[in-house]
Amino acid sequence: MKAKRSARLVDMTRYLMENPNTVVPLTFFANRYDSAKSSISEDLTILRKTFMETGTGVLETIPGAAGGSMFMPGIQKHEASLFIDEVQSALADNSRVLPGGYVYMNDLLNRPSILRQIGRIIATLYSDKKIDAVLTVATKGIPVAQSVATLLNVPFVIARHDSRITDGSTISVNYISGSQKRIEKMVLSKRSLPANSNVLIVDDFLRGGGSADGLCSLIKEFDSEVAGIAFVAERDYEGQRKISEDDYTSLFKIDTNDGDIKVDLGNFTYDNFSEVTKEEE
Amino acid sequence: MKAKRSARLVDMTRYLMENPNTVVPLTFFANRYDSAKSSISEDLTILRKTFMETGTGVLETIPGAAGGSMFMPGIQKHEASLFIDEVQSALADNSRVLPGGYVYMNDLLNRPSILRQIGRIIATLYSDKKIDAVLTVATKGIPVAQSVATLLNVPFVIARHDSRITDGSTISVNYISGSQKRIEKMVLSKRSLPANSNVLIVDDFLRGGGSADGLCSLIKEFDSEVAGIAFVAERDYEGQRKISEDDYTSLFKIDTNDGDIKVDLGNFTYDNFSEVTKEEE
Repeated sequence: MKAKRSARLVDMTRYLMENPNTVVPLTFFANRYDSAKSSISEDLTILRKTFMETGTGVLETIPGAAGGSMFMPGIQKHEASLFIDEVQSALADNSRVLPGGYVYMNDLLNRPSILRQIGRIIATLYSDKKIDAVLTVATKGIPVAQSVATLLNVPFVIARHDSRITDGSTISVNYISGSQKRIEKMVLSKRSLPANSNVLIVDDFLRGGGSADGLCSLIKEFDSEVAGIAFVAERDYEGQRKISEDDYTSLFKIDTNDGDIKVDLGNFTYDNFSEVTKEEE
Repeated sequence: MKAKRSARLVDMTRYLMENPNTVVPLTFFANRYDSAKSSISEDLTILRKTFMETGTGVLETIPGAAGGSMFMPGIQKHEASLFIDEVQSALADNSRVLPGGYVYMNDLLNRPSILRQIGRIIATLYSDKKIDAVLTVATKGIPVAQSVATLLNVPFVIARHDSRITDGSTISVNYISGSQKRIEKMVLSKRSLPANSNVLIVDDFLRGGGSADGLCSLIKEFDSEVAGIAFVAERDYEGQRKISEDDYTSLFKIDTNDGDIKVDLGNFTYDNFSEVTKEEE
């Protein structure tokens, strides 16, 4: 379509948001809108500035023949911190405490708007890593993994405790559940993860770390590397976890002793988050 | 922030895409950008026209005191049909056939870009229905359900075959598995679905229809209504299904007799899809 600047700005924003972490050549937009490359360059400058000022993410310019623009979604410190505070308040509710000190979080982790913000925060925490795939284990981790994978625009891969016919051939590992000291099994479809992938593990809740440890073993079996491990929340845990504190990030730390819930910030830091560079509402 | 039209167009596009199916008052944008309502109205006209011409969706104007603008994501016939053709070709690959005539689709249903298009198509198919929640059953249906729910901006609710501590209190139903004639159980967390919800059931694959029938029973147990049932694919099925052909839509119909895969279009129609109103690239 032959498009004016105003229409181009709207459509380029839409296109880049739907295709994050992908290099889009200048010529793609020039052809799409039947416009001069110089006009497209000016459009991209407007997008870059607006994305930065509103904390939407970074629009990188990739130089060279294979170059173009790449949108990397993120979230700025100010917005992340407001969101974290809101969820912290929502979690700090004794009616969430279930038998055994478990915590009901379904109502938060089934809302697309909350999942998107969690995804933006986890994507920002790992924005300095190269990530080829997101891995989780069924069931509760899937929505969070999908949200992160959507922002990174990489496949997300779901391990299971039991294999299904529809997985085809699988690779399985055994691991010791951290909290219950049982031997458990975890399987992943052989076709689902190519060798030499950098894999971000994402899950909803960390207790003993057994599942995460199992997922790390699976990644090794696929000749791939663990790029990081991210949890929405971790529980206060007595004893030795299967994964080290240095190897994961969590957004919240939840203590449910005596049926009273106490929610603190997790072990993540705001180091990777940029500040808003202009005053905002 | 005080913003010029160009920055407003970028940020409004971003905002509306991240908050679909939500009425955004004119004053929200006017305050956000420190701009006159008349300018915001003109911006919205540009967005509406561009969204329509590019098939991004419909930007509705809601009149009255509680009014504003509401973005309803969708997909136009032309783009939907190109996408359906691509996936049809990708599915028609004999290496996907698994023992028992099952079909490997994980590689497609774990890619965010494919899930988004499937989500847009299902959202368009049910665009004339009021939908308060999307329901699926663990595990394979979750990514599709999440994609649809994200576009509709409603919670998605996950039933399971086994209840977990973290579900809290649950309601369970028994149902007869359509394909294997066994009695199965399905549970849903009591807190996860408010009464009087209009619920869209979404799943990856239809065989005998037992799971979908079970999900319909669950919805009744929650004093709610079935707004529709959507599958990515259905399998050629001999015998009586547990749900009627009139009650569901499928995007693909897959036949795997003799190990040869044959992929046809499902029973959906393009009736709800609009045509692109201007020539496109």
